[in-house]
Amino acid sequence: MSKELTKRADDYSQWYNELVVKSQLADHSAVRGCMVIKPYGYALWENMKDQLDKMFKETGHVNAYFPLFVPKSLFEAEETNAEGFAKECAVVTHYRLKSDPNNKGKLIVDPEAKLEEELVVRPTSEAIIWNTYKGWIQSYRDLPILINQWANVVRWEMRTRLFLRTAEFLWQEGHTAHATKEEAVEETVKMLDVYADFVEEYMAVPVIKGVKTANERFAGAEDTYCIEALMQDGKALQAGTSHFLGQNFAKAFDVKFSDKNNKQAYVWATSWGVSTRLIGALIMAHSDDQGLMMPPKIAPIQVVIVPIYKGDDSKPVIDGKVATLVAELKALGVRVKYDDSDNARPGWKFAEYELKGVPVRVAMGLRDLENNVVEVARRDTKAKETVSMDGLATYLHQLLATIQQNMYNNALAFRNEHITPVDSWDAFMDVLENKGGFVAAHWDGTPETEEKIKELSKATIRCIPLNNVAEAGVCVLTGNPSTQRVLFARAY
Amino acid sequence: MSKELTKRADDYSQWYNELVVKSQLADHSAVRGCMVIKPYGYALWENMKDQLDKMFKETGHVNAYFPLFVPKSLFEAEETNAEGFAKECAVVTHYRLKSDPNNKGKLIVDPEAKLEEELVVRPTSEAIIWNTYKGWIQSYRDLPILINQWANVVRWEMRTRLFLRTAEFLWQEGHTAHATKEEAVEETVKMLDVYADFVEEYMAVPVIKGVKTANERFAGAEDTYCIEALMQDGKALQAGTSHFLGQNFAKAFDVKFSDKNNKQAYVWATSWGVSTRLIGALIMAHSDDQGLMMPPKIAPIQVVIVPIYKGDDSKPVIDGKVATLVAELKALGVRVKYDDSDNARPGWKFAEYELKGVPVRVAMGLRDLENNVVEVARRDTKAKETVSMDGLATYLHQLLATIQQNMYNNALAFRNEHITPVDSWDAFMDVLENKGGFVAAHWDGTPETEEKIKELSKATIRCIPLNNVAEAGVCVLTGNPSTQRVLFARAY
Repeated sequence: MSKELTKRADDYSQWYNELVVKSQLADHSAVRGCMVIKPYGYALWENMKDQLDKMFKETGHVNAYFPLFVPKSLFEAEETNAEGFAKECAVVTHYRLKSDPNNKGKLIVDPEAKLEEELVVRPTSEAIIWNTYKGWIQSYRDLPILINQWANVVRWEMRTRLFLRTAEFLWQEGHTAHATKEEAVEETVKMLDVYADFVEEYMAVPVIKGVKTANERFAGAEDTYCIEALMQDGKALQAGTSHFLGQNFAKAFDVKFSDKNNKQAYVWATSWGVSTRLIGALIMAHSDDQGLMMPPKIAPIQVVIVPIYKGDDSKPVIDGKVATLVAELKALGVRVKYDDSDNARPGWKFAEYELKGVPVRVAMGLRDLENNVVEVARRDTKAKETVSMDGLATYLHQLLATIQQNMYNNALAFRNEHITPVDSWDAFMDVLENKGGFVAAHWDGTPETEEKIKELSKATIRCIPLNNVAEAGVCVLTGNPSTQRVLFARAY
Repeated sequence: MSKELTKRADDYSQWYNELVVKSQLADHSAVRGCMVIKPYGYALWENMKDQLDKMFKETGHVNAYFPLFVPKSLFEAEETNAEGFAKECAVVTHYRLKSDPNNKGKLIVDPEAKLEEELVVRPTSEAIIWNTYKGWIQSYRDLPILINQWANVVRWEMRTRLFLRTAEFLWQEGHTAHATKEEAVEETVKMLDVYADFVEEYMAVPVIKGVKTANERFAGAEDTYCIEALMQDGKALQAGTSHFLGQNFAKAFDVKFSDKNNKQAYVWATSWGVSTRLIGALIMAHSDDQGLMMPPKIAPIQVVIVPIYKGDDSKPVIDGKVATLVAELKALGVRVKYDDSDNARPGWKFAEYELKGVPVRVAMGLRDLENNVVEVARRDTKAKETVSMDGLATYLHQLLATIQQNMYNNALAFRNEHITPVDSWDAFMDVLENKGGFVAAHWDGTPETEEKIKELSKATIRCIPLNNVAEAGVCVLTGNPSTQRVLFARAY
């Protein structure tokens, strides 16, 4: 398979699709809309997951596991939520296959094994979890419940793309239960902060924290908080959401508790999630025409060492030097790979690790070793330099931190250049068409105007930023009065 | 909820069911046969998973993720495998629900959203994975593939029990592809050894390594290797299996490779798995009438500290001393919990942590502190002793290792006492009825006799031990000649 990618400028979408497959992050599968996450992609997900899990535990959460299936009667209990997901859910109706009497070796669904009640494959777990919480919560002493689940979910999307939108995806979903509204809102915002910290600090992708408009809310939420990131093509991507669910699910599943005064009240809820979609965001925030660019903190391989043998004699010498370097790097906690495979030339390997976005490449030839140096190449800047072997491990360890910061700075500069305040409809459309990014515009606050703008421009309100300042103005479409700017963008 | 359990001697099965729920490992759910794994149970699973994952990676494996669904045409491709699982699989037939026109607020399956091809919820992933490997393997350079997956699977069992047999369960499944038969067999045995090491060293449960008879083989395997453990009630439990799949799946999915001489050949396969069922084994190998007994190496809480306050003045003094101890224990890598909650008395807490099987309990009262001592209670022996505060953290750390070893020794002694050689049918039945455990008996090697013995005694051949010695004898049922003893038992 050629390592050549379509250029981003020629066809961004095609570039993305090729990159995911060629870099071996993921692949299409035999199941419509479902992906195979390949070892390199899964190693990335493991690094992301481990860090998020740590942050969840540090904020007092524990993991648990709830059933994959939601009986239809539970699924439909919270009506808004059910309506939101009914159109795209996989439904189990039978529990057995049998031999096809007309077709030897083939199987058919056994009509006698029809389930009394259909089971929905979870598209999200509020229903099954709140039905369970009902049995766990009697008194204020049972609260809060701070549970997270790592799981697969299924949403039968019609148009799918690897990582960005797949019928099955991996995610975590936090589901918390609280005695008071204040505590639930606090939890919602706290988890939004955890997501923002993770995406910025580990993925090197800057985000804007905000709240969704009613139109864009999670089905069943009172308020949906989100982090929005900007991709290189000027489109926004929702990177994570944290929902204040009010008492909606408590009411749907009759989950009450007795407070300190022995008074019964409905429980307050939150839910929050991020998914393998984040990998799509990572790719589109950082990569280039040569391939991926992995932020060092979560890169499966942080440093790759490629030997450049000249004749058979050089192998033991180089291997010996590398062994020491590898040991030193590992002692510093660096994920290092020594690629001494003999089935590819160094140039092929260079291109391969560039495609895979390994942050630092070290090339080591015999001549270099004689001079006590190696060649160090950075993936982010593509700078190459000759570096002394003395203190090399420490130098590389430092370099990884520099690269992490540089990647964030670049993404931040790009993002900040792409938040454009506009005050007229013409300017609004002009920015969307010719520049892209977020458009900061006044909006009259009505769902009708929001809908109309979407129709006309394909842009949605990504969020009302949490740190918004009040500013009097007029709606960019209707001219009606407005008190603040909101962020519009075309989005994934 | 009372902490009292049914006594094992009165009703072992009832004792187990109560224990799982009361110790808060897991709970029944609204979905037939599916369980909710509660935070305490999931923390145990995480510890088991982390250790297994480490051992898989140390033996050269990487993780990946394959789709939850298997299209029916792929599912049926390997006929033996398909037959084995067709009778108990959940089938997705539709991808949408719609509003019930006759019943406001209710949903029905949308008949217009019928899938062209039904999807089986994976009961095991050989089919979907080998269909994928077909695209990944062309040459010997692409081999071996050493992949593991952590996933949920569904088997529509009719009689379910928490952890032991649930419709949905969590597991890992390794799927490897090799160029030669020898390499595949070697892999199969290597992973069996990994399982045995894990179960013995971390779960403190001794196992017998063996190979299954043809009757008991995994559907689609050439050979199924297993580890068999013994429960306290004398029944055996299959704790893990490793399958040599031969070329069955390669042939079913047409997966060939060209070898070094450019000759085409079918690829050789293995698969191996352990599941949340291991938690059932853990419970039934170690617990007692007071509750669980967690092996320290995987216990979610290794040491619990319970303060015994006398008056308000004592709290700050005790808390201060505990803070130091907690810090010292954590520095030693000990998972410690300080339970200073004020909503329960010490006696209630003692019973609670006994039920949950925490290996070591430290009680700390004011009088003790004045004497610079604490009370240390072991869960395994129930011994209590007064221990000096000086060097206490180190002492407790050591004690955990002692408990781990003691638990293993006890389980091993019990297991060894329950391997009984017999040479007559009367003795065979007598041991099964009155003593339980493994019966080492001669068998004539035919599936018919095996089946007949099962009918008569409800005992199956658990395995032909790998370290078996040749011994001439006659079949315990038929009197036909036999060359070795095999292990029979009634089993979970």
